[in-house]
Amino acid sequence: MSGITAYGEKKLVLASGRAHPELAAQVAEELGTELLPVDAYDFANGEIYVRSAESVRGTDAFIIQSHPAPLNNWLMEQLIMIDSMKRASAKRITVVSPFYPYARQDKKGRGREPISARLVSDLYKTAGADRIMSVDLHTAQIQGFFDGPVDHLMAIPLLADYIRSRVDVDNVTVVSPDTGRVRVAEQWAEMLGGAPLAFVHKSRDLTVPNQAVSKTVVGQIEGRTCVLIDDMIDTGGTIAGAVQVLKNAGAKDVIIAATHAVFSPPAAQRLAESGAREVVVTNTLPIPTEKRFENLTVLSIAPLIARAIREVFEDGSVTSLFDGKA
Amino acid sequence: MSGITAYGEKKLVLASGRAHPELAAQVAEELGTELLPVDAYDFANGEIYVRSAESVRGTDAFIIQSHPAPLNNWLMEQLIMIDSMKRASAKRITVVSPFYPYARQDKKGRGREPISARLVSDLYKTAGADRIMSVDLHTAQIQGFFDGPVDHLMAIPLLADYIRSRVDVDNVTVVSPDTGRVRVAEQWAEMLGGAPLAFVHKSRDLTVPNQAVSKTVVGQIEGRTCVLIDDMIDTGGTIAGAVQVLKNAGAKDVIIAATHAVFSPPAAQRLAESGAREVVVTNTLPIPTEKRFENLTVLSIAPLIARAIREVFEDGSVTSLFDGKA
Amino acid sequence: MSGITAYGEKKLVLASGRAHPELAAQVAEELGTELLPVDAYDFANGEIYVRSAESVRGTDAFIIQSHPAPLNNWLMEQLIMIDSMKRASAKRITVVSPFYPYARQDKKGRGREPISARLVSDLYKTAGADRIMSVDLHTAQIQGFFDGPVDHLMAIPLLADYIRSRVDVDNVTVVSPDTGRVRVAEQWAEMLGGAPLAFVHKSRDLTVPNQAVSKTVVGQIEGRTCVLIDDMIDTGGTIAGAVQVLKNAGAKDVIIAATHAVFSPPAAQRLAESGAREVVVTNTLPIPTEKRFENLTVLSIAPLIARAIREVFEDGSVTSLFDGKA
Amino acid sequence: MSGITAYGEKKLVLASGRAHPELAAQVAEELGTELLPVDAYDFANGEIYVRSAESVRGTDAFIIQSHPAPLNNWLMEQLIMIDSMKRASAKRITVVSPFYPYARQDKKGRGREPISARLVSDLYKTAGADRIMSVDLHTAQIQGFFDGPVDHLMAIPLLADYIRSRVDVDNVTVVSPDTGRVRVAEQWAEMLGGAPLAFVHKSRDLTVPNQAVSKTVVGQIEGRTCVLIDDMIDTGGTIAGAVQVLKNAGAKDVIIAATHAVFSPPAAQRLAESGAREVVVTNTLPIPTEKRFENLTVLSIAPLIARAIREVFEDGSVTSLFDGKA
Amino acid sequence: MSGITAYGEKKLVLASGRAHPELAAQVAEELGTELLPVDAYDFANGEIYVRSAESVRGTDAFIIQSHPAPLNNWLMEQLIMIDSMKRASAKRITVVSPFYPYARQDKKGRGREPISARLVSDLYKTAGADRIMSVDLHTAQIQGFFDGPVDHLMAIPLLADYIRSRVDVDNVTVVSPDTGRVRVAEQWAEMLGGAPLAFVHKSRDLTVPNQAVSKTVVGQIEGRTCVLIDDMIDTGGTIAGAVQVLKNAGAKDVIIAATHAVFSPPAAQRLAESGAREVVVTNTLPIPTEKRFENLTVLSIAPLIARAIREVFEDGSVTSLFDGKA
Amino acid sequence: MSGITAYGEKKLVLASGRAHPELAAQVAEELGTELLPVDAYDFANGEIYVRSAESVRGTDAFIIQSHPAPLNNWLMEQLIMIDSMKRASAKRITVVSPFYPYARQDKKGRGREPISARLVSDLYKTAGADRIMSVDLHTAQIQGFFDGPVDHLMAIPLLADYIRSRVDVDNVTVVSPDTGRVRVAEQWAEMLGGAPLAFVHKSRDLTVPNQAVSKTVVGQIEGRTCVLIDDMIDTGGTIAGAVQVLKNAGAKDVIIAATHAVFSPPAAQRLAESGAREVVVTNTLPIPTEKRFENLTVLSIAPLIARAIREVFEDGSVTSLFDGKA
Repeated sequence: MSGITAYGEKKLVLASGRAHPELAAQVAEELGTELLPVDAYDFANGEIYVRSAESVRGTDAFIIQSHPAPLNNWLMEQLIMIDSMKRASAKRITVVSPFYPYARQDKKGRGREPISARLVSDLYKTAGADRIMSVDLHTAQIQGFFDGPVDHLMAIPLLADYIRSRVDVDNVTVVSPDTGRVRVAEQWAEMLGGAPLAFVHKSRDLTVPNQAVSKTVVGQIEGRTCVLIDDMIDTGGTIAGAVQVLKNAGAKDVIIAATHAVFSPPAAQRLAESGAREVVVTNTLPIPTEKRFENLTVLSIAPLIARAIREVFEDGSVTSLFDGKA
Repeated sequence: MSGITAYGEKKLVLASGRAHPELAAQVAEELGTELLPVDAYDFANGEIYVRSAESVRGTDAFIIQSHPAPLNNWLMEQLIMIDSMKRASAKRITVVSPFYPYARQDKKGRGREPISARLVSDLYKTAGADRIMSVDLHTAQIQGFFDGPVDHLMAIPLLADYIRSRVDVDNVTVVSPDTGRVRVAEQWAEMLGGAPLAFVHKSRDLTVPNQAVSKTVVGQIEGRTCVLIDDMIDTGGTIAGAVQVLKNAGAKDVIIAATHAVFSPPAAQRLAESGAREVVVTNTLPIPTEKRFENLTVLSIAPLIARAIREVFEDGSVTSLFDGKA
Repeated sequence: MSGITAYGEKKLVLASGRAHPELAAQVAEELGTELLPVDAYDFANGEIYVRSAESVRGTDAFIIQSHPAPLNNWLMEQLIMIDSMKRASAKRITVVSPFYPYARQDKKGRGREPISARLVSDLYKTAGADRIMSVDLHTAQIQGFFDGPVDHLMAIPLLADYIRSRVDVDNVTVVSPDTGRVRVAEQWAEMLGGAPLAFVHKSRDLTVPNQAVSKTVVGQIEGRTCVLIDDMIDTGGTIAGAVQVLKNAGAKDVIIAATHAVFSPPAAQRLAESGAREVVVTNTLPIPTEKRFENLTVLSIAPLIARAIREVFEDGSVTSLFDGKA
Repeated sequence: MSGITAYGEKKLVLASGRAHPELAAQVAEELGTELLPVDAYDFANGEIYVRSAESVRGTDAFIIQSHPAPLNNWLMEQLIMIDSMKRASAKRITVVSPFYPYARQDKKGRGREPISARLVSDLYKTAGADRIMSVDLHTAQIQGFFDGPVDHLMAIPLLADYIRSRVDVDNVTVVSPDTGRVRVAEQWAEMLGGAPLAFVHKSRDLTVPNQAVSKTVVGQIEGRTCVLIDDMIDTGGTIAGAVQVLKNAGAKDVIIAATHAVFSPPAAQRLAESGAREVVVTNTLPIPTEKRFENLTVLSIAPLIARAIREVFEDGSVTSLFDGKA
Repeated sequence: MSGITAYGEKKLVLASGRAHPELAAQVAEELGTELLPVDAYDFANGEIYVRSAESVRGTDAFIIQSHPAPLNNWLMEQLIMIDSMKRASAKRITVVSPFYPYARQDKKGRGREPISARLVSDLYKTAGADRIMSVDLHTAQIQGFFDGPVDHLMAIPLLADYIRSRVDVDNVTVVSPDTGRVRVAEQWAEMLGGAPLAFVHKSRDLTVPNQAVSKTVVGQIEGRTCVLIDDMIDTGGTIAGAVQVLKNAGAKDVIIAATHAVFSPPAAQRLAESGAREVVVTNTLPIPTEKRFENLTVLSIAPLIARAIREVFEDGSVTSLFDGKA
Repeated sequence: MSGITAYGEKKLVLASGRAHPELAAQVAEELGTELLPVDAYDFANGEIYVRSAESVRGTDAFIIQSHPAPLNNWLMEQLIMIDSMKRASAKRITVVSPFYPYARQDKKGRGREPISARLVSDLYKTAGADRIMSVDLHTAQIQGFFDGPVDHLMAIPLLADYIRSRVDVDNVTVVSPDTGRVRVAEQWAEMLGGAPLAFVHKSRDLTVPNQAVSKTVVGQIEGRTCVLIDDMIDTGGTIAGAVQVLKNAGAKDVIIAATHAVFSPPAAQRLAESGAREVVVTNTLPIPTEKRFENLTVLSIAPLIARAIREVFEDGSVTSLFDGKA
């Protein structure tokens, strides 16, 4: 018979964009490998150039990029990296975006709005991505925006483990800062041993006729340690306001826990001055010194991502890592 | 110059599957036209045959189908209708599915689950649909599952208008039957003049140590008229259970309001016996006599759909109809 | 060099829908493996839920489903299984549909008809199928409906082998029940050693002027054992009618042979009472007890399918299995 | 409101490849317009250049091409024309290919064969075709190869009308030259008033033991006028052989009728000398002088194509033209 | 017959991104309409939100965006605008990008480079663009990157007209600043009446053995007015260097002409001090005050774009506008 | 756990079209394997039939075809081969087209022209090609026409090595025959040690007023050995004319070097009589005896292609082979 036969091998490479080199380095270290050397720079007019300094033919390529501001720049860099890997014959390309860009614009809230979160999925696909890995999507439905496998990692167990070591679980109430995340608060409550739930909400005060709408809390708060949860903290306005409402309602103290520390100004100041006992986040986004403050705790997401990458590469069964109920 | 020139016209046709002929007839009547005559029948082994009895070349075709049980049958019928219209040269095909099939399976709750709601969008697209029209999607993110325009109609204003005529708005609390629909309850509350919110939830009773988890309500209920809302009622277990919890918590009375009356057995019995004062739904799904009961009110969704179809056909501006915040 | 290298492996998994568990079990046994454990159930409104209980990451997944009534249900179940496997990172997905759904609607017989057989191929593709395996397609052109490999297995040799053991080959005439399957009858004739052909047809009797059209047989029948062949038997009307025509024309006896035993009522009764000596079919579709009758012989298709699956998995050369001339 | 509004118009243009200018001219004349002026020429190495000499922006463009030898050249010319029209902003592009290229390779007769007829559909689609118009496809299933509308014109009524004027219908038998076209013969028989059917076939002679296989006819032939039908005549070997078999079997005389006169050498000689009374074809393919012979009748397909084009342009209902049962 | 018939209309809307509002306003004014009112703003983390304040259902939408730094931001804004228009049911979407982003990365100069210009075309397509309009593409082959119509406008005639009014054409030499644009220089030469060509190039001086490579000019320069042309001027290094080479080679004076004034620092300074008599550009990109200098002339591209938009909308024949030979 | 596990292997097969069997045989020999046995023949009307005589399931298939006249025939043969391989379950299909068809039509030079080079890429993709390998593309931008990896091999080093052995490098000038290939000439110049550049061009003679345009050379030629380069030589008119211009301008002698020897008549005669000292080409296209002449040198491209195929198969790093700067 004609033909040449050889044994199959598979090779993992991990390439990183320039948005958050520390996280990429941590993931590589956890994996026990080096980052793929990539030349990347900006032209004077903002155009980005990238090129791998090593061959990626036939590889199982993971392209990790974080998405802080200027977010569009980092997204475009990642798309160009994907394109270059595709054209350089990578066998499979997995996008690793710990903070999924534009996750909040996941529906048409009003007519003629874009659905930017779906657009981002389509852009990844078009550039050449075969699969997506992300952490704590704003809504789990975003998984369905991509036509292919989405590995949805959960940071909540990581955060909850830490919280458990910091509080008396029997005295905890889990609080959602608005009506949209009560379901996620319920997941938190389960991880904290079935704690009660509450949420903050704009409402009329029933005891005072004709009063204007103001923020109130629904649920039992008085004398309790409130774990105020969210998937991301952007400018911190909502979450800091919620701390105040909880305090006014008699909460003993408040711990804030969120996966994605967007921390747009003046988030750091607001959180530092909010009266919360502690703010716990992960490093899915870079948190430069000027955004840090005294009672901020940053947990590393790198071990979780590294474990997921390895198991994807090895076709392992990783339901425990990947599946949330959000 | 060579060529033949003619004036452009456009023509709307409305074709209906066999799942809910009454609704289709109402929509046609509202539009002031007749349904497209379609031959449709089943082969002995369950295969479906459809064929339009009139030409649809160049038309703006709307294919309305409801999706009660046997749901897969009606979905497949609709897909085959779309295929036949595409091959018969319809210019544009709009799927009108008042109750979006598989809307509940809109994410991977656990690993290796399908995302059937996305699959349905893709099946519509593959068959030849250019756009989708639906009512009160289980989650608004489903809009993003389709690569094209989705006209998302809201039945909540219709239901809320009716409810307002039946209650003392000042004494109403809007209640979500679980943690996942508190945001929708908030929309309801706004339409009912800023009513307070509550939700039903499994929780430990804080006042009784070591007690087992049971359903409790979070929010102010005592002495109030509870409007218990949901997007759909399937077997009615959750919603009937919530009525009980609300009653036990001292609610004055309970009105149930939901858009989609799936009413799988024993929903009718459960709802009739639930103790709710009234159950208000729309006819997005057919409600045969055996599923009806005394205090059931069915509002017709046909005027809303007809108005939307006309405005899509006429390229009108219909934000007020199409856009919710769910 | 950066990166992690590992040796490649490949793993076959066989998952089955719920339409015909016996066949799936037989195929698994022939392959020497177990079926993938899959949780599958119906919601009250007919929606289907499926989820593999084991990881399928990186596997070469074969999803076998049979398509008896309610056919649309089983098709949709299969599509949802494909979607779940795709999203769970199966490496390659092969649809195994022994009886191809909607195979008879493979062209526009009249204007505005769908081409449902093409639609089915597109639905498989959209859900995530990479390839299709089927048995005795109604027309071989259906292979061209799928944009990818189609493994077209032939049951005719299996049936013909059996028939050969039951008849005096020198006295056989192969009969097509209508004008559309004379080509297939010719294939049969070759397998039975060059037997003569005949077909049943509506025609004027040339010897009786002005007579109405009735069914007649074209070809030599008198005193011969007729093997009346078809790809499928649905309600059995055509085939039972043909037996009568052959008997009237002087046939010695008649054996019916068909691959797909759809057997919609009253097929069993018709066939049992048709006067045919024996009815030979395969188990591409389940044949429950109530559809069985005395002179029915059911041959198992499982060995053929198992062999094909193994050879697809092992990249073997299987032309002898896969290629017909239909 | 912002924006500029104008009335819609639509404009038909008809462009022709260089394979069969007479047919294109006839179609244009029937339509009452001129062919679009197109510059087309070959580079020395065989590459083809085409460019419309007039604007086609916004037009409903029909690109007619016939496919005689060198067929691949004419197919490629047509694809390039489609590409140029797409890039020049034609609004809708309809391929008019009276003789569908590669129609005979419509399935995998053996493993590893291409399905070239599907490939041709995909090439048309890729180049930019929105729809296909063709005449008497080799098998009607080819309609399903294209993902869009296919207008399948029938020349059989045209041919049958002519035949009726030339024979005593009561003495006609319709004969298929092989086992694969008996279904089409049946259609012919219906158009000729319910004439009996026959087919030619390789078979053992039942009356002579151990005899070699030879061609025989199945059906009543003796003393009758045989209308020997086929969709296309290529080298004429099969059809001329069939004439001989019919004559030997006692046929009174034989008329050959086929839609597509491929007439590869030595078809003209074979047919002229076959003993057939008349050979009736259409001009879907050019028939140059050297391929013509005395008893050849060529009917023009142009009126049928022109009527279909006009009705497609005008969105008329043209089922009578478009739908066969082949 | 069933159905509702209405007359077709078509409506043009022009929407602009925020990168270059002056140009958009000029184009709208030339068209005699207003820009579509669009709400657009940035979230704190850089995510962009856009929404049309008016309905765009059924419109022929033109989305104009310029691409200065931060280029990725403006590109992403344009993609999101396209997505929102697609989902809001615009009938046709034309991207108007006077300066095509990433045009310089139009090939793999080395292995593993991206082809970002193709990626940009694919991103436009994925977001929902039906066609692209651009001015003086870096290479004309970029037209082929988009799968659809590309309207390639030429600014060279505009620039050449102006130049002609400023020079003695008989004493002009057209100079390409490198070897890659000699073909474009030839087009210029034709527009300036057949002027001679030259180009600047790194080369050994043939008259001085062993000398290092330096920039030299090939062609007749001495005593002549050099029109130094390019498609874009980024940092101005190459072009300013070329002026020096030409001066050293005895050029009488030098006029620089380019379509796209990227003008990244220190372009303005370099050009002002280069010794060129005049620098002529268009406003495809915004040129803020700090980038302007004394002998800079900016011609408006708005009339050309407006004319092209109108003719695309009206399906006019606009070859004279659209086609270059670059 | 259920399932069957096996070790992965990969197998290369090399299949050749019928256009240039010598080249395919050389490549196979260089690879140390045999060509895949393929049955290929033409039907009388020009339709092509191909079928591999061996299984290609799971293989890494390379389909090599050259594209001399009749080019469309060989292109279509290659497309059909790709289709057959795809349907026969080849794992990956690489098109090897040493001379890329229609490379010259890579842009719209005028309105309404096709972009045939993009069309060819799309046809390859549609048929089933995963990647393309080609030699010295007419413009490097053609890489961007394909949505996948393109391995762009460079023959210039091969040609330049040979030229170096034939000339005194210090006395060489590299000449482009027109303005469009000066950039490529520059690459040549670098490979020849920094030789000076020149180009031939239509221009007015500045010293003679009112003279008609004629071909002149820009650059230093007198007394030098001119290496006149191009990517392809078709009819040879331009290149032979350029030799004359160079001779007239005082060139010592002229060597012509080009990758693709299209050699359409009367190229051989023109080149033989052009006065060039030697004509050096490769065998990317077959050069039959009648196209050969005395001072023609043909270098084999087979080693380069074989090396590239092997490295693609083995996922090697082959930047040195694949990347040009053209």
